[in-house]
Amino acid sequence: MNSIQSKPTVEAPLYISTDDELEIFEAAYFGGLPIMLQGPTGCGKTRFVEHMAHRLGVPLFTISCHEDMTASDLLGRYVLTDGSTEWVDGPLTRAVREGGICYLDEIVEARQDATVAIHSLTDHRRELYLERRGGEKLCAADGFGLVVSYNPGYQSVLKDLKMSTRQRMVAIELGFPGPEVEERILIGSGINPEAASALVRLGVAIRRTSQSGLREVASTRTLISAGKLMIKGLSFKSASLAAIAGPLTDDVELRAGLLALINAYDPSI
Amino acid sequence: MNSIQSKPTVEAPLYISTDDELEIFEAAYFGGLPIMLQGPTGCGKTRFVEHMAHRLGVPLFTISCHEDMTASDLLGRYVLTDGSTEWVDGPLTRAVREGGICYLDEIVEARQDATVAIHSLTDHRRELYLERRGGEKLCAADGFGLVVSYNPGYQSVLKDLKMSTRQRMVAIELGFPGPEVEERILIGSGINPEAASALVRLGVAIRRTSQSGLREVASTRTLISAGKLMIKGLSFKSASLAAIAGPLTDDVELRAGLLALINAYDPSI
Amino acid sequence: MNSIQSKPTVEAPLYISTDDELEIFEAAYFGGLPIMLQGPTGCGKTRFVEHMAHRLGVPLFTISCHEDMTASDLLGRYVLTDGSTEWVDGPLTRAVREGGICYLDEIVEARQDATVAIHSLTDHRRELYLERRGGEKLCAADGFGLVVSYNPGYQSVLKDLKMSTRQRMVAIELGFPGPEVEERILIGSGINPEAASALVRLGVAIRRTSQSGLREVASTRTLISAGKLMIKGLSFKSASLAAIAGPLTDDVELRAGLLALINAYDPSI
Amino acid sequence: MNSIQSKPTVEAPLYISTDDELEIFEAAYFGGLPIMLQGPTGCGKTRFVEHMAHRLGVPLFTISCHEDMTASDLLGRYVLTDGSTEWVDGPLTRAVREGGICYLDEIVEARQDATVAIHSLTDHRRELYLERRGGEKLCAADGFGLVVSYNPGYQSVLKDLKMSTRQRMVAIELGFPGPEVEERILIGSGINPEAASALVRLGVAIRRTSQSGLREVASTRTLISAGKLMIKGLSFKSASLAAIAGPLTDDVELRAGLLALINAYDPSI
Amino acid sequence: MNSIQSKPTVEAPLYISTDDELEIFEAAYFGGLPIMLQGPTGCGKTRFVEHMAHRLGVPLFTISCHEDMTASDLLGRYVLTDGSTEWVDGPLTRAVREGGICYLDEIVEARQDATVAIHSLTDHRRELYLERRGGEKLCAADGFGLVVSYNPGYQSVLKDLKMSTRQRMVAIELGFPGPEVEERILIGSGINPEAASALVRLGVAIRRTSQSGLREVASTRTLISAGKLMIKGLSFKSASLAAIAGPLTDDVELRAGLLALINAYDPSI
Amino acid sequence: MNSIQSKPTVEAPLYISTDDELEIFEAAYFGGLPIMLQGPTGCGKTRFVEHMAHRLGVPLFTISCHEDMTASDLLGRYVLTDGSTEWVDGPLTRAVREGGICYLDEIVEARQDATVAIHSLTDHRRELYLERRGGEKLCAADGFGLVVSYNPGYQSVLKDLKMSTRQRMVAIELGFPGPEVEERILIGSGINPEAASALVRLGVAIRRTSQSGLREVASTRTLISAGKLMIKGLSFKSASLAAIAGPLTDDVELRAGLLALINAYDPSI
Repeated sequence: MNSIQSKPTVEAPLYISTDDELEIFEAAYFGGLPIMLQGPTGCGKTRFVEHMAHRLGVPLFTISCHEDMTASDLLGRYVLTDGSTEWVDGPLTRAVREGGICYLDEIVEARQDATVAIHSLTDHRRELYLERRGGEKLCAADGFGLVVSYNPGYQSVLKDLKMSTRQRMVAIELGFPGPEVEERILIGSGINPEAASALVRLGVAIRRTSQSGLREVASTRTLISAGKLMIKGLSFKSASLAAIAGPLTDDVELRAGLLALINAYDPSI
Repeated sequence: MNSIQSKPTVEAPLYISTDDELEIFEAAYFGGLPIMLQGPTGCGKTRFVEHMAHRLGVPLFTISCHEDMTASDLLGRYVLTDGSTEWVDGPLTRAVREGGICYLDEIVEARQDATVAIHSLTDHRRELYLERRGGEKLCAADGFGLVVSYNPGYQSVLKDLKMSTRQRMVAIELGFPGPEVEERILIGSGINPEAASALVRLGVAIRRTSQSGLREVASTRTLISAGKLMIKGLSFKSASLAAIAGPLTDDVELRAGLLALINAYDPSI
Repeated sequence: MNSIQSKPTVEAPLYISTDDELEIFEAAYFGGLPIMLQGPTGCGKTRFVEHMAHRLGVPLFTISCHEDMTASDLLGRYVLTDGSTEWVDGPLTRAVREGGICYLDEIVEARQDATVAIHSLTDHRRELYLERRGGEKLCAADGFGLVVSYNPGYQSVLKDLKMSTRQRMVAIELGFPGPEVEERILIGSGINPEAASALVRLGVAIRRTSQSGLREVASTRTLISAGKLMIKGLSFKSASLAAIAGPLTDDVELRAGLLALINAYDPSI
Repeated sequence: MNSIQSKPTVEAPLYISTDDELEIFEAAYFGGLPIMLQGPTGCGKTRFVEHMAHRLGVPLFTISCHEDMTASDLLGRYVLTDGSTEWVDGPLTRAVREGGICYLDEIVEARQDATVAIHSLTDHRRELYLERRGGEKLCAADGFGLVVSYNPGYQSVLKDLKMSTRQRMVAIELGFPGPEVEERILIGSGINPEAASALVRLGVAIRRTSQSGLREVASTRTLISAGKLMIKGLSFKSASLAAIAGPLTDDVELRAGLLALINAYDPSI
Repeated sequence: MNSIQSKPTVEAPLYISTDDELEIFEAAYFGGLPIMLQGPTGCGKTRFVEHMAHRLGVPLFTISCHEDMTASDLLGRYVLTDGSTEWVDGPLTRAVREGGICYLDEIVEARQDATVAIHSLTDHRRELYLERRGGEKLCAADGFGLVVSYNPGYQSVLKDLKMSTRQRMVAIELGFPGPEVEERILIGSGINPEAASALVRLGVAIRRTSQSGLREVASTRTLISAGKLMIKGLSFKSASLAAIAGPLTDDVELRAGLLALINAYDPSI
Repeated sequence: MNSIQSKPTVEAPLYISTDDELEIFEAAYFGGLPIMLQGPTGCGKTRFVEHMAHRLGVPLFTISCHEDMTASDLLGRYVLTDGSTEWVDGPLTRAVREGGICYLDEIVEARQDATVAIHSLTDHRRELYLERRGGEKLCAADGFGLVVSYNPGYQSVLKDLKMSTRQRMVAIELGFPGPEVEERILIGSGINPEAASALVRLGVAIRRTSQSGLREVASTRTLISAGKLMIKGLSFKSASLAAIAGPLTDDVELRAGLLALINAYDPSI
């Protein structure tokens, strides 16, 4: 498991709202309801949660779920150190104790015992039970909130969030920002305005052609990566091929199509 | 495993009976017969068991079953603490010793050794055997009762309750409450009467259209969630989209249909 | 694993013979041959073995087999208690040492190493080998007998008793008792004669219609459960729906058919 | 694992040769070649090996293979006893050290690491390597022999003996004995001549009809079981149904056919 | 796991650039972006990374991924040595601490928990979290870089790099070098110019016919192997059959085709 | 795992070369290239490697790979002996340290982590990394060589050697020896010339008919086994049936065909 705890810092991570997602997040958080974020890869789900944790002034515990993750990875375990056994709280337990936001990224990947471990925190009980700690029962501290992310594009017969879990959540759907907002985000990452404008127009064009066989479209993240390569001296074309076209597909024909688009939006041509 | 033990509290959890489920529960409980609750997601199975445990004045041990749950999670295990090994009773063992109700939520998810562990408690023997405790045999204390829940909608070839387990149970079928009762439940959760009425009418409308592709219909729980978001300031539409439509489906067309229903019942239009 | 050891008690468990099963059981037992009980769910296989153990005056070790059961669950294992390691005999080993009957309920569910562990006890050798005990070899004490149960209705390609195991057994087939005997069994369980008669007639009717889609028919056990609910005050209809129809099927049409039968035999109508 | 070691006893187990299997066994044994016994369930493979071990005056180590059996079950392992760790030779290692016959019954069931563990014993090397014992290398003592059994009827795509293992073996095919021999075997088990004759004729008749859907035919073992039930007082019909027809099939029509045969050969009719 | 750490040495490993891969690598490395190398087997991915690590003057940690590799293999684990438990950093952790390049060869083979472990290192966080070390959080030292390799030819439904991982990477595509460069590489490996020229022409010819059923074409590595066999005295034909044709295919017809090509380019004919 | 280490002995194991396999082996060995032996079951791959190790005067470490074999089986592990933990080198590690030949028989059976563990030994690095030994790095001693065997007839979709492994190897293909050579081998095993001649002619005839349904043909090994049975007194027919026909097939018709061939070449008829 890989879990990162971020204490609130002085400056909030940049996040530019595109719809009513801030209002829904706050209404759910203060109403004690868990939140399910939906949206495509790289649209800014992680950054949105970081922004909200900062705005609300609570610590954030981020967990990237994966298919080997079990309840112990969330709750904690006994660790053997220097001959003696010591309990180490998992990130969910810490969020419950300290009143922070626990963010389970791509929850659908986790094993079922991990998913079920959150159930008693998602209804009127708001309790966490640590069986291995001799049955310790924790009531969630004030400020505790639970956020999960879920990419509908990944759902399959084998791996889908159970309806009994989904119906415990408030859904917030995130998409890619509009062109003006996306340009502001790229410029905020240190990319010069002309490059930012060209990259955003390229991204919009790729998203428009997403029916043509690409599994996913160019995310804001890949546009930023291309811009960063340009800062280090690469041309628009080299940077876009390496950071946008290469990650998107291995297919020769699809790459040729992407190259045509890159040439079409290359500001140096 | 995630298990919650609730001691009876002064005030019983609100539960409004809709059929003869209270009488059957009491007849089975006092007749020493285990109970199988059936019904759709979010219809109130957990709340019903909490209500009955309070009414009968016995402690309740709730266990959310999952596919990694084994007999040890129910019966107990040796835990290593401070260098010495200590036996910790599992929730089923505690219920047997203390004479409480043990509630196995979604029992069909558990591994077979867990399901079989309850067999000797469900017939005339009413005994529990702890092999790992050197063969300790426990007779169920007075007041012990066993309740399992089972959602027929989830049954499949791979995961179904064996007939030899089912035939040991008394079945109680729960459904969604009628509109008047459901309105009272929402109002009891702090939602104002006008919103409660609109939400319940929306829920009824969604349930009526359940043939149209939705895997499940709007539960009472999602109606309450929507109402809570309205208390925190969201509009009927925003709240219903986030708490009802979002959790129910990712399908674009089904969402459009749900949005049309939400608009049709929006009291602010 | 869940294993129950019953010492012979003063009074034998009620069992009313319906065929020559007692004679075959005794001939096999005294001839040193293992026994395979066959028959539908709830027809009284467990009770029959309890009855025979009592009649023969030997202790009974019952084991509910399941797909996670291994040879160690039968033979025994080292258990860590208070820092020192101690061997704890499993129920099969205890039966071999003490000369009791070991009853493996639904043996087809157990893992293969468990099934194979009994082979040397089922032929002319009558020996048990405990490899983990440094190769200890046990000759079965006088009085040792092995009984397994097997429900042909459950057999599948994946899970079937191997012919090399079956051919080591003497088969006894059990069915539901005839109506007069079944009524006597219900009355023996405290149910009043009129209710017993109606319930047995209902059971017979359901068994007659078993071609109609039910996976299994109403067992004697479910008729007793219904009678016990009536003792606690439920009507014939409520009791029969909860204890008989509910456990038998989730199918709406099949339930309607069962309801029609229940009404047809309701003594209060 | 279940392994039985038999020291040679005064009297050899009864075995009546039906072909040149004794000569081939001795030629292979003295030529240092491993032996593969083939033949249907209950035709006497185990008894044949016991007979040969007695005749050759060497100890016999019998191992019933199963799908959870690993190399450690054959070679040995460290066992924790009273706080100290002690190596316990597995049965194959003991046979190699003591110069006995190691008989792997149904070897095709074992896991591949167990099958491969015998390879270096089956060619010109005749060595066994105990990696876990710090690389101890054992040369097979004089008198060591390896015998495996293999039922071709069980072979499948998933479980078949690899050709590279088979080609290391000398094959001996065993079948059911002829009627006269089989009668002598039954009489040798204490069954009276008339019953023995009737049972053998019944067995021959069943084997003749084996095309009719039975997975396997009546083995000599089941005929002996039926005879033993008759010694304990059961009739020919009851004994044959319980010991022969019951183990052979659960199919109603096939059972009816077997019953007709039983009646046809019943000496009391 | 098999991981090799190479400290920078005096002389850089020979690498002859064929496109702008050096510029993209450096732009991504200095821009803090992880790199995904793509290209066929044996085209020189490992050597390219070794060359870049030397050029940049940072230590290199190479890990060959495989399907049993877990996060612990990357992050580290407690190892029991001489009775006391000691934490041993895994190669990823060492690269993060020491500011080196961590190269995950064929990352798609690793288990998902290993793949997810790198996520927080691949975005703006650049952090590594060691849960088992009591929650130690490491910020990547200056000089840390992450490189993965990925052979598109191996991708399948079961094993493919998730888009959410890919979109975090900058892609560099490597192919086989052109004939002149490849000849220089062979001569640099000690092969005489005439043999080098013939082998390269053979390699080019095989690559041209790659549509004809070969799963992969002759890599530069196999050409070097053939040349080395010639240095040891084998003929062009023997060396090419053993080092090129043999590894490429077992198919009789495809081998015949390769033999024809070998004869066509044999400088001794 | 089963691993055998052979120190070079005075007399080399008999091996009669049939092609240029000795030259290729030596060129690859002295060129530092790993070797992949290909050929059918029982054609003498193991004996060839033993012969070469003796000829080159280096120790040989043979490992029979199987599907449960992991990297630890090759590299070594900590073993608990007398309370203290001690590292025991695996056979690959010993070969690397001592400069011997490590022979992985049927490498395709091993688990992937075992296969990957050899990668860094097969390219210019020639290093082995022992992560569990605190990161010890071993450079292969002079004389180290790696040989794997691979039977193309066993390859399948599930189990095939990866191209990235194959392309690291020099391939040597072995077949059955010609009749004269094979006769000399049989006579060298103590079989009299007339029997040797008849058995070889039988073998050649069987190999010619291999299209007729046999999965594999008669290997030299089975011819030697038949000859050894004849030395112990069996007839040509009995010996050939037991050592050749029996291991090759269970199919009744194929056996009849083999019997006809045996009769055709029986020198006593």
